[in-house]
Amino acid sequence: MAFASYYPLEPGKENVFVVQTTPIKYGPGCVAELGAEAKAMGLARVALFTDRQVLDLAPAQAAIRSLQAAGVDVTVYDRTEVEPTDISFQEAADFAVDGDFDGFVSIGGGSVIDTAKAANLFASHPAELLTYVNKPIGQGVPVPGPLRPHIACPTTSGTGSECTGVAVFDLLSQHVKTGISSRFMKPNLALVDPEFTYSLPPMVVAATGFDVLTHAIESYTAIRYTAREKPADPALRPPYQGANPHSDLGSMEAIRMGGRYLLRAVQDPEDREARNAMMYAATMAGISFGNAGVHIPHAMSYSVAGMIRDYHPEGWPGNAPICPHGLSVVINAPAAFRFTGDGDPQRHLAAAEALGADISGAQPAAAGAVLSDKLIELMKAAGLPNGLSGMGYGEADIPGLVKGAIAQQRLLVLAPKPVGEAELAALYADAMTYW
Amino acid sequence: MAFASYYPLEPGKENVFVVQTTPIKYGPGCVAELGAEAKAMGLARVALFTDRQVLDLAPAQAAIRSLQAAGVDVTVYDRTEVEPTDISFQEAADFAVDGDFDGFVSIGGGSVIDTAKAANLFASHPAELLTYVNKPIGQGVPVPGPLRPHIACPTTSGTGSECTGVAVFDLLSQHVKTGISSRFMKPNLALVDPEFTYSLPPMVVAATGFDVLTHAIESYTAIRYTAREKPADPALRPPYQGANPHSDLGSMEAIRMGGRYLLRAVQDPEDREARNAMMYAATMAGISFGNAGVHIPHAMSYSVAGMIRDYHPEGWPGNAPICPHGLSVVINAPAAFRFTGDGDPQRHLAAAEALGADISGAQPAAAGAVLSDKLIELMKAAGLPNGLSGMGYGEADIPGLVKGAIAQQRLLVLAPKPVGEAELAALYADAMTYW
Ligand SMILES: [Fe+2]
Ligand SMILES: [Fe+2]
Repeated sequence: MAFASYYPLEPGKENVFVVQTTPIKYGPGCVAELGAEAKAMGLARVALFTDRQVLDLAPAQAAIRSLQAAGVDVTVYDRTEVEPTDISFQEAADFAVDGDFDGFVSIGGGSVIDTAKAANLFASHPAELLTYVNKPIGQGVPVPGPLRPHIACPTTSGTGSECTGVAVFDLLSQHVKTGISSRFMKPNLALVDPEFTYSLPPMVVAATGFDVLTHAIESYTAIRYTAREKPADPALRPPYQGANPHSDLGSMEAIRMGGRYLLRAVQDPEDREARNAMMYAATMAGISFGNAGVHIPHAMSYSVAGMIRDYHPEGWPGNAPICPHGLSVVINAPAAFRFTGDGDPQRHLAAAEALGADISGAQPAAAGAVLSDKLIELMKAAGLPNGLSGMGYGEADIPGLVKGAIAQQRLLVLAPKPVGEAELAALYADAMTYW
Repeated sequence: MAFASYYPLEPGKENVFVVQTTPIKYGPGCVAELGAEAKAMGLARVALFTDRQVLDLAPAQAAIRSLQAAGVDVTVYDRTEVEPTDISFQEAADFAVDGDFDGFVSIGGGSVIDTAKAANLFASHPAELLTYVNKPIGQGVPVPGPLRPHIACPTTSGTGSECTGVAVFDLLSQHVKTGISSRFMKPNLALVDPEFTYSLPPMVVAATGFDVLTHAIESYTAIRYTAREKPADPALRPPYQGANPHSDLGSMEAIRMGGRYLLRAVQDPEDREARNAMMYAATMAGISFGNAGVHIPHAMSYSVAGMIRDYHPEGWPGNAPICPHGLSVVINAPAAFRFTGDGDPQRHLAAAEALGADISGAQPAAAGAVLSDKLIELMKAAGLPNGLSGMGYGEADIPGLVKGAIAQQRLLVLAPKPVGEAELAALYADAMTYW
């Protein structure tokens, strides 16, 4: 459906939206053009953020060779954590400040890209770590201006961090996940090379792929930008604006691609069409949620990931207890969309249809259920755990989970209907078992 | 349909595409945020390019007041021509060089925005006018680097110039339309305010609206980026890359919106939903054709506009002979798409359907005709002239028209099938009368 008829403008409400996207270069092998791009930006001495697993991959080696061939001096920082913390951010920032690089390159998943964003921030605008961190945990001081150039090369088809101005980390002293967000933290260029994903194990493709799907469905079902109050000063417009005609296009494309390619990408590592498609879908969803926002499933995910005890996904690298970001999100999604369905039935049905559900004859009252049933079908087929109970959670954990979720007001205000502690408790209960 | 299955990659062919879009702020009244945006870019002294008609409009006055309220010093340049020439570009460039402004603002249609781009280029990288002009007419020297900041405020729902890196002008000594193109000429921000269009006469809305439709249909039916040879050096990748998954999304949205809102916007100046929608469609189409390219209808348009003798559209401002850009393009479009239909039947049918045609039961062999018939229906309803003959052209003009079109190889190579002088002559003949 074309824009306009479904975004009626109301007096006093917001009537402006902003689209500012990271420039993208997409294609298999495109990371070999990293050197040419760095040179075109005038970079002579860069810090390259990555991790040891990624560093060994052929595309990462090709990227580094291309920097060297272009005469760009490279200093590798490979000590990024799988889940960044205030400690690891501070270490990376110290490295960046000491090195006084003229630009940054990140080659990795969301954690690596987020770490490079934080390091670049503190090198460009030195300050105490909590200065720029979102309130109420940090001081929420706005980032004062542009950072040094940053080229991001995502290696998983997931977070979309290459398109957002957000860096997430665990504040260890308070056992809480928080972040820094600013449009100035958006990378200046994303080299999106699906070859990085050809060697990923199925569970990594599944976890990151469901992250993509939830980014797209959450940004599509978020409140519309026209439902927000118009700010007195344009500088007060939030980075997460709500669904808008631009985010809708990218979200729907990512949902369609996820419905068509996610299972294929998980089940057959040789299916390059599917892995190429999921990499592009991740970027499209990143653009959309980076300007529209995400809501309940992501708000619920922080405590799910933070409170994990002894769960370790089948086939996930290492053996420490871990709940990968995508799993911690999608595990809440069927419960969340069952709840939000009546907040915007038409959009929940449209999302279900884009995902591949047959919605002929579906009543608006069943919109949330139709979407959730389709998601559950995909989750089961991809070998995901059967709800929170499948990750070792029980009823007794609900108060703790709710406490973590209710703190994410920045996201919860984007839900298509109001949600408080009682509703969150019911959602975690509903998310315990799906089949 | 989701991307991937229809962009199969082939060895030796291009497998990379680039998306780099002007940041956009869209909404009625948003131009009143111009001062805040200029200040956020650090601008203290700007040259404001516009024309006398636009200068009197309430939104233009609001924009200037907002610059002054933000403490930005403004020097107005209102001598831009409706059809810029080498003379008018040189005058604007001299003005910009003399003024040594720290940034540029343009408020106007494509001609004004293009003039500001050119002035900014010569102020930032001084040179003789023909230095950066496309070969073979100019020397085709690549623009060496970034220009000064430029905020573009389009006042018609048409050219999409706010999203492209192209500036077009008439080279008077050679009686030829040519241009300068570089990614560095893309404005740094577009404030897209549909209130500018509320006072436009119907024929202006029609001409600019059909320009939007042709941008969208041409970029959607252009050769695919995967059909081009892969360049040895990424710097040699052309700015017009061919259709790609990103341009397809925007093109299809603009076609859907044009099919739904163009006639409403032309026929009822009070239909703000329609005029708002066409303004957004113009920007979406601008993003898409700015990275995919346009082909035959635009290639044919330059000589149609340049050779006009005594035509002046009903209700067009002034009374000099003129063929507005949008009319000079769309007048060729039905003939062009009848010809290109068999070059990519599926895409011509999809475009026709997005435009509102019933394609059930349409055979692939009829794809071009189905699309052209729908376009002709819209053109007739909008009160456009009945083909080239309706603008005073006859058979005797065809050799001259072909001479102008065949020179536009940069565009013709993007057509979904080969086109030479004989084909162009047949296309102009077919474009003489449509109903
Ligand atoms: Fe996520
Ligand atoms: Fe045009």
